Amino acid sequence: MLKLFYKLLLTFLIVNNTAWALENGLARTPPMGWMHWERFRCITDCKRFPDECISENLFKRTTDLLVDEGYLAAGYEYVIIDDCWLEKDRDNVTNKLVEDRYRFPSGLNHLADYIHNKGVKFGLYQDYGTNTCAGYPGVIKHMALDAQTFAEWDVDYVKLDGCYADINEMDQGYPEFGRLLNRTGRPMVYSCSWPVYQEYEGKLPNYEALKEHCNLWRNWNDIDDSFESVAQIMDYFSKNQDRIQPHAGPGHWNDPDMLILGNYGLSYDQSKLQMAVWSILAAPLIMSNDLAKVRPEIKEILQNRYVIAVDQDPLGIQGRRVLLRNKIEVWTRPITPVAANNQYSYAVAFVSRRADGAPYPTKFKLSDLNLNNKLGYTVTDLYDNNKNVGTYKPGHIFQTRVIPNGVTFYKFTALN
Amino acid sequence: MLKLFYKLLLTFLIVNNTAWALENGLARTPPMGWMHWERFRCITDCKRFPDECISENLFKRTTDLLVDEGYLAAGYEYVIIDDCWLEKDRDNVTNKLVEDRYRFPSGLNHLADYIHNKGVKFGLYQDYGTNTCAGYPGVIKHMALDAQTFAEWDVDYVKLDGCYADINEMDQGYPEFGRLLNRTGRPMVYSCSWPVYQEYEGKLPNYEALKEHCNLWRNWNDIDDSFESVAQIMDYFSKNQDRIQPHAGPGHWNDPDMLILGNYGLSYDQSKLQMAVWSILAAPLIMSNDLAKVRPEIKEILQNRYVIAVDQDPLGIQGRRVLLRNKIEVWTRPITPVAANNQYSYAVAFVSRRADGAPYPTKFKLSDLNLNNKLGYTVTDLYDNNKNVGTYKPGHIFQTRVIPNGVTFYKFTALN
Repeated sequence: MLKLFYKLLLTFLIVNNTAWALENGLARTPPMGWMHWERFRCITDCKRFPDECISENLFKRTTDLLVDEGYLAAGYEYVIIDDCWLEKDRDNVTNKLVEDRYRFPSGLNHLADYIHNKGVKFGLYQDYGTNTCAGYPGVIKHMALDAQTFAEWDVDYVKLDGCYADINEMDQGYPEFGRLLNRTGRPMVYSCSWPVYQEYEGKLPNYEALKEHCNLWRNWNDIDDSFESVAQIMDYFSKNQDRIQPHAGPGHWNDPDMLILGNYGLSYDQSKLQMAVWSILAAPLIMSNDLAKVRPEIKEILQNRYVIAVDQDPLGIQGRRVLLRNKIEVWTRPITPVAANNQYSYAVAFVSRRADGAPYPTKFKLSDLNLNNKLGYTVTDLYDNNKNVGTYKPGHIFQTRVIPNGVTFYKFTALN
Repeated sequence: MLKLFYKLLLTFLIVNNTAWALENGLARTPPMGWMHWERFRCITDCKRFPDECISENLFKRTTDLLVDEGYLAAGYEYVIIDDCWLEKDRDNVTNKLVEDRYRFPSGLNHLADYIHNKGVKFGLYQDYGTNTCAGYPGVIKHMALDAQTFAEWDVDYVKLDGCYADINEMDQGYPEFGRLLNRTGRPMVYSCSWPVYQEYEGKLPNYEALKEHCNLWRNWNDIDDSFESVAQIMDYFSKNQDRIQPHAGPGHWNDPDMLILGNYGLSYDQSKLQMAVWSILAAPLIMSNDLAKVRPEIKEILQNRYVIAVDQDPLGIQGRRVLLRNKIEVWTRPITPVAANNQYSYAVAFVSRRADGAPYPTKFKLSDLNLNNKLGYTVTDLYDNNKNVGTYKPGHIFQTRVIPNGVTFYKFTALN
């Protein structure tokens, strides 16, 4: 009898464990914030590069700028430390992770307090494997301890990378670390790098599991500071949209990687393009730049409330590239308001992949973009202060003129 | 006896013809100016695009801006009409070329006067073949007439494209048109597209002939509005520098195509990069942009007098890529002043082909860049108001930090 009881208990535990999901109630819309990697990489020489090295100073000044320059008010709420914040060795008594003592002299609790006192949330990087990508200690043999340490450091967001790890263990290991994070009782957004490493080795990620166990996940390549990199990521997301797009939704998001606006590699128009396409993709909007050096016209794009509203749309349906003609791509995303007849409104981005000098005039019939609300749509220009540019019905032709490697971006609000 | 005389005369004429060279005394430094193609292409719809269509209006307003915005004073002296200025048919009585009557209602003589009265010079496009690239009538069957017409229109600069032509006739035909231009008695800079069409069909251009017969020539691809395009052209010029570089000099220049600064596709740092590398290449500095819309910081690059001085250096020696290490390219160009010990000064551009976020710190020993003047060099930063950054000798290490897909650019002035 007791034997049967234990058998049942075991069955219950297994079922329960299998059915366990993150369900931390976080990231109901794609997370927004700032992370150091793309711009600051693994700069550790604070003598030579005092404003750029991965240190207390960088995250404090970024937090200040996030608040003072209006980014927090626009929705960017996380300041996230990426790789290269650790000492090379764990504490030799407690085995705990130790922040670099020279670069974080006041400790992470102090930094977390500083960030929290400004109304900002605190994110921290680790790696599922034996080492982080830059060679610092990973979590794999100390998962419970590290989850607990993260909670003690008042972390609000965890990015778990996948270097130096066995991709076949990830299906089990990433959920396990998520469970341990949850167990601490501290709500932490959980960002997984699990699928990208599997994709690299030719294994199709289990997106159903990702949805269950992660708030967001990196699907593919790290972004670099070039339009070429932005374009490659866009191409990956459009070519694979059938198997990627359906899995996004409140609490669980695909992540095409950071916004690189405000750095060196994008022109003004390419900056508008990344912001528009990322918002169509319901992407986390995590900037990586030097907030002290973002030009005013780029800051305006980053803080464009109409574009951010598309990204943060409460329906949480990821958009798709629906058409490609003469190197003009049309990306659409169903958004609120939903009309009484159950017709979605849409964000529609016309993206040029042309480089032939002159802005390209083009036109599309609404029904060819699957905009079929018989009562029509009010169209507003998201990059022109949401200006009304007319009312269109499914049979109407919408004309636009798109700058080379640029974008025009509209909201088609469904009429009742 | 008379027979012998004619034989001798014929021999003389043939020899003379073979030995004939352009020698028009023009383009002693690479031509500088503005041309419509990259930005404005073949826009002919003036109702829909009144500010952009290829018309009198475009060239008048560009001339005004060239003068009023300081470009002429900086050295940009030619305003050049590219393709799409012609009627589709020649005059049916005289066979003369006719400018588009709707878009150039006052005629080219009026436009030339307008341009000349502003102290600017006037350039015009034609094509060696039966048709221009956009399908307008080419010169091939009316070369003498067209050369004469160009002179009557007070043209100062001729770009002769090579669409719809037999590449095997070009070795003879391009020099012939140059001779006809010269014969008019009006000095006209002669820009040949001859080598690019031969390269496309796998025939090695005869650079010795080009030097003799053209003031400049397009070596390779048309430039487009993207950094990718700039980078491809740079790569072509570095990979082929052994056979291209030696042929440049006063009166005869390789042409990597237009400056695209001020348009949509280049970031600020990529703009500095194109300007620096083009000046190393002793390239014609022919902008193609909408001068009314060039941002102030880009205008500053276009008018940087230190960089322009490199481009216009009187020695006229084209530079080369001398080193590539960790995706940092070093381009150098021998320039004046030449020290008493016959050591050149150098313009040195450190060009990053990296996209990994953080500016890349790097260092080079001067002698590794063939900077061997034992007395050393005074180094000044061409993008920082020619600020002195120190004195270096051949054994010294020069350190710099280069922005992703950006450039640092210095003058190393040889000391006596």
